[in-house]
Amino acid sequence: MTEIIKTDVLIVGAGPVGLFSVFELGLLDIRVHVVDILDKIGGQCAELYPEKPIYDIPGFPIVTGQELVDNLLKQIEPFSPVFHLSRMISTIERIGDPLFRVTTDAGDVFETKTVVIAAGGGSFQPKKPPIDGIEAYEGKSVSYAVRQMEAFRDRSVLIVGGGDSALDWTLNLQPIAKRVTLMHRRDAFRAAPHSVEKMRALVAEGAMDLKFGQVVGLEGADGQLTGAVIKEDADTVYTLPVDHMLPFFGLTMKLGPVSSWGLDLHNDELVLVSTETFETSQPGIFAIGDINWYPGKLKLILSGFHEGALMAQKAFRYIYPEKRLTFQYTTSSSSLQKKLGVL
Amino acid sequence: MTEIIKTDVLIVGAGPVGLFSVFELGLLDIRVHVVDILDKIGGQCAELYPEKPIYDIPGFPIVTGQELVDNLLKQIEPFSPVFHLSRMISTIERIGDPLFRVTTDAGDVFETKTVVIAAGGGSFQPKKPPIDGIEAYEGKSVSYAVRQMEAFRDRSVLIVGGGDSALDWTLNLQPIAKRVTLMHRRDAFRAAPHSVEKMRALVAEGAMDLKFGQVVGLEGADGQLTGAVIKEDADTVYTLPVDHMLPFFGLTMKLGPVSSWGLDLHNDELVLVSTETFETSQPGIFAIGDINWYPGKLKLILSGFHEGALMAQKAFRYIYPEKRLTFQYTTSSSSLQKKLGVL
Repeated sequence: MTEIIKTDVLIVGAGPVGLFSVFELGLLDIRVHVVDILDKIGGQCAELYPEKPIYDIPGFPIVTGQELVDNLLKQIEPFSPVFHLSRMISTIERIGDPLFRVTTDAGDVFETKTVVIAAGGGSFQPKKPPIDGIEAYEGKSVSYAVRQMEAFRDRSVLIVGGGDSALDWTLNLQPIAKRVTLMHRRDAFRAAPHSVEKMRALVAEGAMDLKFGQVVGLEGADGQLTGAVIKEDADTVYTLPVDHMLPFFGLTMKLGPVSSWGLDLHNDELVLVSTETFETSQPGIFAIGDINWYPGKLKLILSGFHEGALMAQKAFRYIYPEKRLTFQYTTSSSSLQKKLGVL
Repeated sequence: MTEIIKTDVLIVGAGPVGLFSVFELGLLDIRVHVVDILDKIGGQCAELYPEKPIYDIPGFPIVTGQELVDNLLKQIEPFSPVFHLSRMISTIERIGDPLFRVTTDAGDVFETKTVVIAAGGGSFQPKKPPIDGIEAYEGKSVSYAVRQMEAFRDRSVLIVGGGDSALDWTLNLQPIAKRVTLMHRRDAFRAAPHSVEKMRALVAEGAMDLKFGQVVGLEGADGQLTGAVIKEDADTVYTLPVDHMLPFFGLTMKLGPVSSWGLDLHNDELVLVSTETFETSQPGIFAIGDINWYPGKLKLILSGFHEGALMAQKAFRYIYPEKRLTFQYTTSSSSLQKKLGVL
């Protein structure tokens, strides 16, 4: 049986806003677990622009996304948050006042007093190829990410795409799969040149196949693929026998599962919150950062920091209903400085 | 005649929140003038804790007040704000829709479309000694700051206090005054030891006087002091002939002149604002940072940053009513990057 992870706060999203919330909650003696769909900490900053300069973080004339994330990780170190990466929230159920049971697609079960949605533009979700009936194979023989490489041992694998994910997984799976075929629309790749070179060398020595064209249909039964119908050009359509297909068409941002949590939304795409507490229409569930909306809202990282600070005050009341909250400054409070490990 | 300084925005307060507003306004092509009562940029951060570490600025595990101010100054450099220091707002008058005429106690006259109050805890004001009738002499022969040293040439000056200001002005005025007397409650000084030593050396060589006791009354007429009544102990009360008195009893923070601007206040001490625009009850006048109040308000620097960003959006509509505002990111907008001088 899965062990239930008990926590005060479950933060959904390990981007800069989620990370800084760990700090504001930590100052109030609130411990947190953080879940993120990506396989790394930092959200969009780390995934989409780790090396791109940001100019509008107060006090930083210039900072890259990765530097900002690294600084925030250092800042929250005293509070030892627990990160659970590469997983998405599956279900959220209210079991107390407030108390929630939250499950993920990796099988975790959390029991948490409060939930803080800091999911940015939503969850990063794979863009799906437009193939009729693909849903029937998803999760069985069509995957958009590799969770366990062993699942591909001795299988015929078709990898589709021309970016880094497609090339990286081609190179990683080639040694253990029965046969890897990489397919792309044309002979031009966005992936790192040295990966492309390695792939071409493997093709040259006959260790894998490279094909050009588009997958236009799937063959198989009960979710198990047997072949992919390939259209090479207007005149050439054939079926390639495969056990598994991995399409890597990039990521897109979607509100995702949050839209089914029964929260009041703005324009069906952002979570409505109070500007006093950044609580949603569901007591005990907060939303901060780019995913929320209120009059005047700007999707700025610095606004998410502010929202996290105010959220922490209300979360405190749920987590320590009997305690009095005295507002203190890190500059002058020796009790806060002790928590930060600087005194 | 004083030249009228015309500007889009007049920011009252050069602390971190006022400084970062210059950045957010600058991104929108809005130019600003900044007025501060202190003789330096940085507000409380520079005045009260330049070397004290702050731990709760997002992205800075530790930063001193002065470092934060220096970073912000670098960040707003591309927008060349004009600073007017050592002056306090005297009057503010609405002359348009919106357009304000603002005067300072240094004689400046501004015509500005909008006013942003970023005055922190309010204005730093001198603590006054509890002496009956002292008001009659203030500004004439009782001063709480030295504006021009020449005004003290060949005068008998009584300096009261035991801190750095009292000792520094004792040492500065001793060479030019007719006679300087330093008075403190007791023979123990908070000021820097080397200043105290220098003062004692001057007393030893007969170049100035040091007395202990309290000023309990003032003598003179028409605002001109002739003597200070000194109580040395329960039995000893005498009158010291003086032309000028300088009490240095420290600074206190007061809402100050802002309280007479006709703005709706919270508890008579903070300026009520909208969380959508951070505008006060007077259209065209905004309040951001520690001086404002709204439900959930926390007096955090990071909240002031957020408030400044949202304020700038509304200020834009007053300043460029005909233009459309497109929200852009510094990370991706080449037009913003040109303004910042990085492209």
